[in-house]
Parts: sequence; C-alpha cells; structure tokens
Amino acid sequence: MGLPAGEFVVAGLDVALQCLHADCPADPVESGPPRSTRRRTPRRKGTTMALVISDMSISLDGYVTGPNDSKDNPFGDGAGTLHDWLFDEATDADRALLHSAVDRTGAVVMGRWSFDKCVDMWGESGPVDGLPNYVVTHREPDRTYPDVYRFVTTGVADAIEQAKEAAGDKVVGLHGATVLQQALPLGLVDEIHVHVVPLLVGGGTRLFGDLTSAISLDRTDVLVTPAATHLRFRVVR
Amino acid sequence: MGLPAGEFVVAGLDVALQCLHADCPADPVESGPPRSTRRRTPRRKGTTMALVISDMSISLDGYVTGPNDSKDNPFGDGAGTLHDWLFDEATDADRALLHSAVDRTGAVVMGRWSFDKCVDMWGESGPVDGLPNYVVTHREPDRTYPDVYRFVTTGVADAIEQAKEAAGDKVVGLHGATVLQQALPLGLVDEIHVHVVPLLVGGGTRLFGDLTSAISLDRTDVLVTPAATHLRFRVVR
Repeated sequence: MGLPAGEFVVAGLDVALQCLHADCPADPVESGPPRSTRRRTPRRKGTTMALVISDMSISLDGYVTGPNDSKDNPFGDGAGTLHDWLFDEATDADRALLHSAVDRTGAVVMGRWSFDKCVDMWGESGPVDGLPNYVVTHREPDRTYPDVYRFVTTGVADAIEQAKEAAGDKVVGLHGATVLQQALPLGLVDEIHVHVVPLLVGGGTRLFGDLTSAISLDRTDVLVTPAATHLRFRVVR
Repeated sequence: MGLPAGEFVVAGLDVALQCLHADCPADPVESGPPRSTRRRTPRRKGTTMALVISDMSISLDGYVTGPNDSKDNPFGDGAGTLHDWLFDEATDADRALLHSAVDRTGAVVMGRWSFDKCVDMWGESGPVDGLPNYVVTHREPDRTYPDVYRFVTTGVADAIEQAKEAAGDKVVGLHGATVLQQALPLGLVDEIHVHVVPLLVGGGTRLFGDLTSAISLDRTDVLVTPAATHLRFRVVR
C-alpha cells in the first residue's frame, strides 16, 4: 500500500470548531497566524459572493456525532476518534489543511443545538476568536451573549446572507449537520468538505439528510493522510 | 488539483454484480480471464478461512440505491451514476480494480431482495458465471432455480459459512446492504470496500445500518480515479 501525498487547500470552518471542544488535548492552530487579524477583514457592504462551505469530519457511515451527545459528551458515544486527525494523529498535511480552513473562513452559521452544547466551552470569544457566529434558532436565548454570537430567528437563508456580508472576501462555514441539511435543498451550499475517518459509529447524527431529489457533486480534491481521507466537493447546480 | 495515482488490489464482488444489470451498456469484465476458470477453483473441504468482503458503490451520503428501486429500476431514482466508474467513466485503473475483484471472488452471499430484483437479468449462469450465490431468505422460493442460486433459510451466518466453504482459497463477496448490516454485528465481515461516488442520493437504501456500538476500521488502501474514490478498510476486531 502506498498512500499518495498531495497538496490540498481547504476552506471551511468546522475543522476549527471541532478542535476547540473542552476535551481537546491541544489547540492545533496555535502556530497559525494571529486569529485577531480576522476581525480586520474588510467588509464589503452589499457583497454576497462569499462561498458557503460545509466542512465536517464524518465516520465512514456518515455520522458527525455518536448517540447521546451533550455538553458533557460533545462528540457522542463511540465517536471520539472522529477528530484524531486534528490531534494525536495529525500530520503536517493535516495541520496545514486545518490552518488553511481557519484562515479562509470569515463567518460561521450554526444550529442552536451546536450552540447550546458548546457555548460554555467556546467562551466569550467564540469558537474561533473574532469570527462572528450566526446561530439559527426558533427563539432568542433568555440571556445575553457576547457579540460574536448573533441569533437569527428567520431561518437559515437569512443567517447565511448575514454571514456572507460579515465574511467579506472570506468564506462562510456551516457548522453541524442541521444547517447543512436545511441549506442544501435551498441551493445555498457551494462546497462540501468531508474528512472521512475509518470508523463506523452506527448511530447519532448523520451529516446528510433526506433529499427530494439527488444532487450531483464534482470532487475537486483529495488528500489522504493516515487518520482521514479528506475529500472536497463542489455542489453542481 | 492533482489526483494521485496508485496501485490498488481489491477483492470483493459487488462491483462485478453491479455491472451485470440489464441496463448496463457493456460488460466491463469481458477482457478479463475466462470466468469459467473460476469453477475450477479447488475446494478445500472444511476450510473456512476465506475473507468476507463487502464491496459496494455508494454515494457520498451512503446510499447503494435510490428510492423506488425495482426490477425495472434496479438502481433506484437518482442513483444511475453510482456505477459510472464501471462504464462510461471507467479508466484503466477502474477496470483493473474490477477485474481484480472478480478474479478474487469465489462465492457470493446476497439478500432475497437483491435476488428477486435481479435474477431475471442475471439468468441461468448467475451474476458472475460459475460463482455460487447464497441467498439469505426466510422462505424457499416457490419455483426452482439453477444450481448457482442456493437458498439459505437459517440466517446470514450459515450462508456465509457455506459460501466460505465453496470459495476455497478465494474470498466471499457480500452483495447488498442487508447482508452487510446483518453480518457486521456478528463479527463476520473482514473487509469493507467502498467506491465513493460524487453524488448525494438523499433517499433509498443505505449501505450501513444502526449498530449497538462503534466499530473501528483500518483504512488499508485508497485509489482515486476521476469517477470515484475507492477506499478499502479492514474491520478491527
């Protein structure tokens, strides 16, 4: 067996979010550029050209978390190794991919469950310091949160539109399965990046949901590292 | 983007079965060795060491067929391109992979639905001429079928055991999602080979089912061709 090496430039954010859970042994982006520089990305009012990218680690059977995920068990049962490529098993190629994903992302859209589950560990600065996070929710929270968290009660399309505006010339990262499943049928997703991990979780939350008709993809790149098969796809419209 | 090339030896059968559906434009194994030689594989009575391999084309969201699959629509709605890597999009590397899979397979285990859906198109010689097919079913069919079809009413474990005996020093191929989903929790599957196609089907039959606990895999090889990402995994026990 010979695993091919390759150059791979990835955009998206979920890889960054995944690395900031409380049980992560280290922050793998610590050697990257200062995060605070992202705040300085010029915002182009009225510009909505930012690509929207879902970027998630998935098991071979398509799960992003195992069963019983919670604040205390953010990855769910049996899914702890889904992010090994970011930590103990990370190679230089994995780390480069992560840094690239973080650097290219200008704003995040996530679901309420992701927010509720992880906000305590992300803290005041958000999952990636300085990036605005648009939380799609049916109701505003009862308490106030730092400005990096912005709640959108009018649906995923509005949240993505606001995130595009905030992202400027960077990309919008979709975090979690719910927002992808909502945005994809609306034609709002440009790319899907998955990091396929050699694991069958067998339950929990799947990245992909039901569709009323099939959607074609273009595979645009592949990177093979020991702990994951990194695949990028463009959504064909 | 540069797609890496690689050597890849694959065992399994589903790739061969897939190519023999009625709506396939050509038989991509026609340039391979004569199938009839497979009948001459020496059978070692009492030997049950044959590897059991599931080998399936899947969409990125994990489907092996789309919705509404039937005799007249064997791949289901929206899933027609799942097998393009075997036909219109096939490269030499894809063809070599297919030939290798066919050559290494000594017997097949399939579910009753796969049998009922496809037997008319496979005809008297079975999906791959000369290979015995063990059909897991609750009831024997009302009519007789050629000897290549053997019905096992005592469960998937018995079907696999009989197929191992028949396979001799070759491998047992699992055809379809049902037999994989039944055999995997029983510890009866050695390897899982998937051909990931750039498509979201969004409904139909998923390859992987629910599990009571996660199963770790070792990724043993990767082959990237234009129409599919071919991944091989060994089930870790």
